[in-house]
Amino acid sequence: MFKPDFHFPPLLRKLKRGGPAVTLPKDAGMVIAYSGLGKDSRVIELGSGSGFMTVQMANIAKEVVSYEKREEFWKLAEDNVKRAGLTNVTFKHRDVLEGIDEQDGSFDLVFCDIAEAEKAAEMAQKALRKGGYIAAHCLQSEQAKRLHLAALPLFSEVFTAESIMREYEVREFGFRPANFGLLHTAYMVFARK
Amino acid sequence: MFKPDFHFPPLLRKLKRGGPAVTLPKDAGMVIAYSGLGKDSRVIELGSGSGFMTVQMANIAKEVVSYEKREEFWKLAEDNVKRAGLTNVTFKHRDVLEGIDEQDGSFDLVFCDIAEAEKAAEMAQKALRKGGYIAAHCLQSEQAKRLHLAALPLFSEVFTAESIMREYEVREFGFRPANFGLLHTAYMVFARK
Amino acid sequence: MFKPDFHFPPLLRKLKRGGPAVTLPKDAGMVIAYSGLGKDSRVIELGSGSGFMTVQMANIAKEVVSYEKREEFWKLAEDNVKRAGLTNVTFKHRDVLEGIDEQDGSFDLVFCDIAEAEKAAEMAQKALRKGGYIAAHCLQSEQAKRLHLAALPLFSEVFTAESIMREYEVREFGFRPANFGLLHTAYMVFARK
Amino acid sequence: MFKPDFHFPPLLRKLKRGGPAVTLPKDAGMVIAYSGLGKDSRVIELGSGSGFMTVQMANIAKEVVSYEKREEFWKLAEDNVKRAGLTNVTFKHRDVLEGIDEQDGSFDLVFCDIAEAEKAAEMAQKALRKGGYIAAHCLQSEQAKRLHLAALPLFSEVFTAESIMREYEVREFGFRPANFGLLHTAYMVFARK
Repeated sequence: MFKPDFHFPPLLRKLKRGGPAVTLPKDAGMVIAYSGLGKDSRVIELGSGSGFMTVQMANIAKEVVSYEKREEFWKLAEDNVKRAGLTNVTFKHRDVLEGIDEQDGSFDLVFCDIAEAEKAAEMAQKALRKGGYIAAHCLQSEQAKRLHLAALPLFSEVFTAESIMREYEVREFGFRPANFGLLHTAYMVFARK
Repeated sequence: MFKPDFHFPPLLRKLKRGGPAVTLPKDAGMVIAYSGLGKDSRVIELGSGSGFMTVQMANIAKEVVSYEKREEFWKLAEDNVKRAGLTNVTFKHRDVLEGIDEQDGSFDLVFCDIAEAEKAAEMAQKALRKGGYIAAHCLQSEQAKRLHLAALPLFSEVFTAESIMREYEVREFGFRPANFGLLHTAYMVFARK
Repeated sequence: MFKPDFHFPPLLRKLKRGGPAVTLPKDAGMVIAYSGLGKDSRVIELGSGSGFMTVQMANIAKEVVSYEKREEFWKLAEDNVKRAGLTNVTFKHRDVLEGIDEQDGSFDLVFCDIAEAEKAAEMAQKALRKGGYIAAHCLQSEQAKRLHLAALPLFSEVFTAESIMREYEVREFGFRPANFGLLHTAYMVFARK
Repeated sequence: MFKPDFHFPPLLRKLKRGGPAVTLPKDAGMVIAYSGLGKDSRVIELGSGSGFMTVQMANIAKEVVSYEKREEFWKLAEDNVKRAGLTNVTFKHRDVLEGIDEQDGSFDLVFCDIAEAEKAAEMAQKALRKGGYIAAHCLQSEQAKRLHLAALPLFSEVFTAESIMREYEVREFGFRPANFGLLHTAYMVFARK
């Protein structure tokens, strides 16, 4: 009966889906727009997952460094970056909770898609330039809350939001939202240095 | 009592607000993510308005051509593009309903923020490469419906959606949405060539 | 994969579903609460449909008069009222657009679930006591708009609203909305005499 | 600028607002409709608050027993029940966490508006007949979660939901949601015995 259409742009249709949940365009768009991501931006990704978000950010940014500890994920993510024809991504096969190399305050965005993002708040803060953002994709409200509270003393602006997207059925005789659809993907936590 | 915070990134905080409604990051993010806008993209904007969306797109894209017929708007938009330090925008002071120059099928995105977007569907289609998108910001459901129906015979995929954004109040003892806030900005219509 | 659970109370689980769309508890609840429906209320229903809303109102109100022109619907609705064990409903087998008998200004609520509800606004106004409500279940935005505009000159307060209901997945480790679910049922139009 | 209109029915306009948060019609409607509250129902309310919900339930039900430990609240609630002209409410001036008298399994609904509703789940279960409901109004997600999890082993069906209500601006030329409004009131937890 109900079959969701995520309306992936051609860029994402070339990719393979794997085990990990994918950051959908509605949430990727929030990350890009609220952080002001642009063609000069330098990005760190904590948790490559399937690489869908890696590709969406690398398509815009100058450079992406992406950390992933699980081999089956980084293989999928690296393959997807190649499928997208992007060459500005560096993968690091490591658990970010053991620390990241980039601690010089020169990055514009740290995107975080790991279970315990609150443990990465401090290293993200050190990696970012003043005015740069951490943005995190949190499946559960508890995860969003932990990160939000951990970020409060470290950043100058912290906010948590969700985007509820509704698609419409549009016909000559009627305009109304589709009856069934996606109700939730993730809580998004943002913090600006 | 209630004071909305749109959480503009530093890029947008430099800009001046004027008369026309502004495309907020939540909606700009949808346009960027659903069209797959990237650093190689070439964009046409129909209706510069205050230039907030011009800046958000030019910060990412290679090139933006922006049409605006009202002098007080194009002056504001041009000033805002300068404030953002961007040099890849060409403004054309013209009513787009009289026609646009770019009809060679080489553009990646046509963003539309005019009252009668349905009248621009055909010229947008001619301006776009195969796989390129028209995306429109429609205040009223009737406008979204007219554009959606006009786009159906011209494009291979047409969809209309809205993003309902909710911000959360996050405290040690409680996590819940803010009581009051923004409930609606615009219906967004997308069509892929 | 996705299987909606409408969480019908025992009262509604006894009923048979048929062709017509059912007024779900979320929308029935709005009608009851915004009109202040109580055990002394007298109600007129325009369009019995499957009788689900008839049952939900008759379970509370003193008396319900329900109009339905289609035989397969009134048979289903009458059967459902019996299954619910309710004896305070009078069915009238008639097209309400030909006029209703109750025009003495003594009713507390007129609930409307017909395609052209705007054509019933005037007769509803005559049927209602001062302070009584018309409430309508409109599938399409165009229907809601037509009724809302038709009611403006006839009633002292008119408003249109929708309830977006989200169910949560609640586990020890996580609290978040279900990923998929019902996004829309109807626009609800209310007008107070 | 933004002034919320809660669209109270005449029944509620007679009441005085005091300190405690009020259960709005959108949430009262959910309680009534999902529990199948009717004119033969017998109700227990844990936490009278300002009496708005007491009035909304007593207007429908046969009998309401309402517990409230704080004197300034029960005085307001008793006054509001009088203003509404209702005579079927019994107030008990007591902290429900010390226990309630009604433990004979004969009630149809226990409505709960106290901070630690999870501590009342067991006494609510004993008060209810088979098929009866506990329904709770929880401001914070953490409260909803605690009650939901406490109810799971005690009840046959447990669900948590919220209603996001949007009001529309309706004009001849345009139909769209109001820009600003109420985004959240409470998480509602339901459990059926």
